[in-house]
Amino acid sequence: MILSALITSVAINLGLCLLFFTLYSILRKQPSNITVYVPRLVAEGQVKEGGHFNLERLLPTAGWVKQAWGPSEEEFLSNSGLDAFVFMRMFIFSLKVFAFGGIIGMFILLPINYMGSQLSDESDFQHKSLDSFSVSNVNNGSNRLWIHFSAAYVFTGVVCYLLYYEYWYISSKRIACFYSSKPQPHQFTLLVRGIPVPPGSTCDDIVERFFLEYHPSTYLSHSVVRQSHKLRSLITDADNLYKRLTHLKHKNDAPKRQTRDGCCGLFGCKVDAVDHYERRLGDIEDNVRTEQSSLAAKEVRAAFVSFKTRFGAAIALHIQESVNPTEWITEKAPEPHDVYWPFFTVSFIRRWISKLVVFVACTTLTVLFLIPVAIVQGLANLDQLETWFPFLKGLLRLSVVSQVITGYLPSLILQLFLSFVPPIMIMLSSLQGYISWSQIQKSACTKVLWFTIWNIFFANVLSGSALYRVNVFLEPKEIPRILGEAVPSQASFFIAYVVTSGWTTIASELFQLTKLISNFISRIFCRNSDDNFEPPSIPYHSEIPRIRLFGLLGVTYFILAPLILPFLLIYFCLGYIVFRNQLLKVYVPKFETGGEFWPTVHNSTIFSLVLMQIIAIGIFGLKKLPLASGLTLPLPILTLLFNEYCQKRFFPIFKDYPAECLIKKDRADPNEHNMSEFYDKLANAYDDPSMKPMKYSQRSDSHSSPLLHSSE
Amino acid sequence: MILSALITSVAINLGLCLLFFTLYSILRKQPSNITVYVPRLVAEGQVKEGGHFNLERLLPTAGWVKQAWGPSEEEFLSNSGLDAFVFMRMFIFSLKVFAFGGIIGMFILLPINYMGSQLSDESDFQHKSLDSFSVSNVNNGSNRLWIHFSAAYVFTGVVCYLLYYEYWYISSKRIACFYSSKPQPHQFTLLVRGIPVPPGSTCDDIVERFFLEYHPSTYLSHSVVRQSHKLRSLITDADNLYKRLTHLKHKNDAPKRQTRDGCCGLFGCKVDAVDHYERRLGDIEDNVRTEQSSLAAKEVRAAFVSFKTRFGAAIALHIQESVNPTEWITEKAPEPHDVYWPFFTVSFIRRWISKLVVFVACTTLTVLFLIPVAIVQGLANLDQLETWFPFLKGLLRLSVVSQVITGYLPSLILQLFLSFVPPIMIMLSSLQGYISWSQIQKSACTKVLWFTIWNIFFANVLSGSALYRVNVFLEPKEIPRILGEAVPSQASFFIAYVVTSGWTTIASELFQLTKLISNFISRIFCRNSDDNFEPPSIPYHSEIPRIRLFGLLGVTYFILAPLILPFLLIYFCLGYIVFRNQLLKVYVPKFETGGEFWPTVHNSTIFSLVLMQIIAIGIFGLKKLPLASGLTLPLPILTLLFNEYCQKRFFPIFKDYPAECLIKKDRADPNEHNMSEFYDKLANAYDDPSMKPMKYSQRSDSHSSPLLHSSE
Repeated sequence: MILSALITSVAINLGLCLLFFTLYSILRKQPSNITVYVPRLVAEGQVKEGGHFNLERLLPTAGWVKQAWGPSEEEFLSNSGLDAFVFMRMFIFSLKVFAFGGIIGMFILLPINYMGSQLSDESDFQHKSLDSFSVSNVNNGSNRLWIHFSAAYVFTGVVCYLLYYEYWYISSKRIACFYSSKPQPHQFTLLVRGIPVPPGSTCDDIVERFFLEYHPSTYLSHSVVRQSHKLRSLITDADNLYKRLTHLKHKNDAPKRQTRDGCCGLFGCKVDAVDHYERRLGDIEDNVRTEQSSLAAKEVRAAFVSFKTRFGAAIALHIQESVNPTEWITEKAPEPHDVYWPFFTVSFIRRWISKLVVFVACTTLTVLFLIPVAIVQGLANLDQLETWFPFLKGLLRLSVVSQVITGYLPSLILQLFLSFVPPIMIMLSSLQGYISWSQIQKSACTKVLWFTIWNIFFANVLSGSALYRVNVFLEPKEIPRILGEAVPSQASFFIAYVVTSGWTTIASELFQLTKLISNFISRIFCRNSDDNFEPPSIPYHSEIPRIRLFGLLGVTYFILAPLILPFLLIYFCLGYIVFRNQLLKVYVPKFETGGEFWPTVHNSTIFSLVLMQIIAIGIFGLKKLPLASGLTLPLPILTLLFNEYCQKRFFPIFKDYPAECLIKKDRADPNEHNMSEFYDKLANAYDDPSMKPMKYSQRSDSHSSPLLHSSE
Repeated sequence: MILSALITSVAINLGLCLLFFTLYSILRKQPSNITVYVPRLVAEGQVKEGGHFNLERLLPTAGWVKQAWGPSEEEFLSNSGLDAFVFMRMFIFSLKVFAFGGIIGMFILLPINYMGSQLSDESDFQHKSLDSFSVSNVNNGSNRLWIHFSAAYVFTGVVCYLLYYEYWYISSKRIACFYSSKPQPHQFTLLVRGIPVPPGSTCDDIVERFFLEYHPSTYLSHSVVRQSHKLRSLITDADNLYKRLTHLKHKNDAPKRQTRDGCCGLFGCKVDAVDHYERRLGDIEDNVRTEQSSLAAKEVRAAFVSFKTRFGAAIALHIQESVNPTEWITEKAPEPHDVYWPFFTVSFIRRWISKLVVFVACTTLTVLFLIPVAIVQGLANLDQLETWFPFLKGLLRLSVVSQVITGYLPSLILQLFLSFVPPIMIMLSSLQGYISWSQIQKSACTKVLWFTIWNIFFANVLSGSALYRVNVFLEPKEIPRILGEAVPSQASFFIAYVVTSGWTTIASELFQLTKLISNFISRIFCRNSDDNFEPPSIPYHSEIPRIRLFGLLGVTYFILAPLILPFLLIYFCLGYIVFRNQLLKVYVPKFETGGEFWPTVHNSTIFSLVLMQIIAIGIFGLKKLPLASGLTLPLPILTLLFNEYCQKRFFPIFKDYPAECLIKKDRADPNEHNMSEFYDKLANAYDDPSMKPMKYSQRSDSHSSPLLHSSE
């Protein structure tokens, strides 16, 4: 890629971003778009539809930037929760790292690279290849490489310091949030699995007897989990039918209210649709009631057990209960609304096997995904396109077209393929036997992260020169050399990737094009769409890996091609302000893990650092400076030791709260809250939502207002 | 190696064994040898010196075999403790495995190997190379290899079943032993390290305040650890001096009692030795008392904290105490007499660093040790010897000499080198910051095990064909092929190794040659040697790795050269009876880990199985049967999954006792034992032994009998 192509790409994308931002600043002020641009405020009742038309509504303004920038960290934390706070700290951390890296890279490394003559690129400045700005241009054996060597050490040191500070800061916030939290059911509750039920007894009795025997002073209550697959699908049917019914009742045109009572509404005699649906709803309700009454017998060998104190729950959590470690397995309960009911695999063996199966499936997916990526790689190559589609030759030789294709198209197609991955990973994680949405998202986040690193970074780096080098990782000794050869040659691809994919995703995150369109359509075709309105929550499992990938690119290319850093800085600046806006106005926090996403961010940064260092070892070797190569060897070891220390120093805080905190909080409770009232609520907090009585049809005895189960 | 050389070697070693056994059966009946052959019974007061001479004492009898065989498993367990029981189960397990393997190997695999013609060894039966009995002799691509393939699957299945049964059996014994144990101080006590002491406070106060605050209902008492290096060396001096003094007083010849009071007793004027030593002892005692009184100030930031119940201690152990996980670190206390006082590294960072340093040192030792092994390999090779020492050519060509050299010498030299390793590993483990002898031995046991496997098995296998293949393990894809080539070619070396090294160590373990000689010498030169008599304890860290190496050889060569199995069976039979004898009569259990050595045995067996399977993959590939090679691939995966399951199912029981056991035991205590008396003892159980008052010289005020510190 030459400099002018990069400039074209930057110009196009800057233009696109500006366009998106301008459109956003206008559209966000239109009252009809409030469910797209401020759904959180709508859900919280802070914004109402309506308002008079005035001219200001059509002018682009930057007021939203000020609003997003405005709240202090403390305000943001109390407003959006610790998870969102950690998400924003990720941007702040990246900004700090790349501001430092950018200064060193642009003012020290870049001039040195450019002064080299290894590539003997004699073209004028505008047509210079981007490789002239990368380490490839430094002459072999040149002593200037020692500056790169020092930069690697200094950069690693600074990043490690920042990582340590950030881990410390977030863990202290986590503890502070715990101290300031109200008593919550999940703090007092455990999920117990693998309950050994002898024939003739019920799970209910066994659990009660066991905990009264071994935890008499702290045990409070329990609710046994029941097999409610069938019931849940019946309730979903009822929900859907009820929605259709209300929708029909709102319409006034009688002819449309008729339907046929046969198969798919196509055959049979014509009947009144409302009557027909009401009858069916009544039938389903009867079924639900029968099912609910028979459910008591369908016990699963698992129960939510609540304790009187947090410390009591922690004791039962941490000490192996039974002589057989595969029985009475305890784990922390999620928040009641966070429980993932559908897949409650129970036996120890079954969960273990499903974990293995998911592991294999996930690895297979990650490896097989290389095939579409290879096609994308083909498209990125202009010569290849000309051979494939000879009739396009004339068109492809137009400089604008060729620049668009080399600069923009490949990453767009890649993006499309990648959008399917997060839902698949969520599905795999849910099969793994996690019991809450937050855990599923956390696990999917790690899966997507590795997927992204492998399929975007490594696949591009290694297939750029040879796809069949995938088995590089089976020859550990060769890794530095191969990466040292392959990674710098892909520098221009990744610079273009940051500019196109990076900037555009940020802009489209703000603009929410798909939601805007679907909102527009639904407003035209069905008027009462607000009934179904539910504010979205941020999909951490797809956002964090995407952002971390850019972090990885920055760290890896810091030495090789520092030209990438200014573009990354812009990306993180935009990201900071846009996501702050979105977290304040769009996304509603659906669960609270207490910042448990941070260790993932930390680990991925360590991985990037080690990767950068391994590539540096390879580069110094290739550049005929074996001494520098050898002296870089301690760097990854030191980095891994630093990581080991951080894991020992901070990770336990993210796994569980220490005794000190639990006991202090337990003692403060009775002074601050009405505990007996809380205990009453706690006893029923973990009942299966499908067990609650349903009251849709008029046939039900009590004529209370209909309850929507799905929103509970 | 040819068949007749093997037969010679077997004959020599059988002869040696018989000789040792005969000598033992005579010598053990001599009253003067009781401290060599039944020290445990002497220490327990069951055997007294003396008795009349009769002819029977000079006749070899096998009564000891009957005595060793006699006790049932339960009797043996209650007599020698769970650790010794686990040690014997290792033999029983190996016997089961190799009895099954031996039947399949000798009656199915061996005939098939012998029927092959790959090696085209045309010599007569007596001069046939041992390789004719190994898998190397099976023709390439022969379908008979499918029998080897099935044997690998069946053998793995049987070994896994036996492993599972054994793990289950030993864990149930562990729980049973816990239930039947008396209240012991270490069950109620934790060691707390990393106590944060603010300036102006003492560790003593801080510990008391912390545990009264957070564990008020279960906290009993604590004793802070103090820096007593100097005190301990003073006490050792005093002990030695006191011994010399008593020795002198027993002698009656006056001239010898004079010594010179100058440097090293060589200069200065002559003085009476007893007076001189008594004066010095008095001085040291004064120093000890000064040191003891100043010790209170030399607090280390660690303390032994005792609790009222076992469950209370478990709570404090399992739940992270402080917000900072590097402070208030708890670990289980060892038995009071098992505490290793000298090296009480305290700060979290220092212990972590010393662990890293020890890891590096241990790896370096393991790798550098290859050099002497290479020399041993050279000696094992007759041609090499002739080129090195041409003048020996005539001697070396004598068939007896050459057979002794190939059959016996190499493993003897190896043995000598290896005898230095266990003490070095013990030293390294003690530097690692373990707080008890039992933990140090357990850690050293693992270190020695890996050392043995690497330096005996791999070094011989890989240097036999090429020493420089050590870096095989950096090319994972090549491992099966290289091992498949190298391992079978060393079969005859290892058969000889079992016969020479294996059988001889067992016989010499029984005969205790060095102790016999030193006992003989001390009886002649100093009469009152009984004062220093201390019964030995079994060195698990050197015995378990040695025995496991033979297990590894048997499993690995089961398919390749089944001829090794009968010799191994003899080894394990002898070992069973000899070690049973030794554990009942010679070794005193010095600590009780509750069978925690078993997981090491389990893991090493799994490692052997996987190694066998990887070699099988390589062999089938080399023998041009790629289908069998491919179909063997699932076997190591299944084995590792089985191991994973066992770790989940049984390992937690070996780490800690479950809540169920702890609570049941706590509740049974007050009915069965006088707990207040026990609590009184508990409060002082973990005081530093060097803090106890010493009463050697006549100058001390109370004229009580002298106490030997070293035996406390």
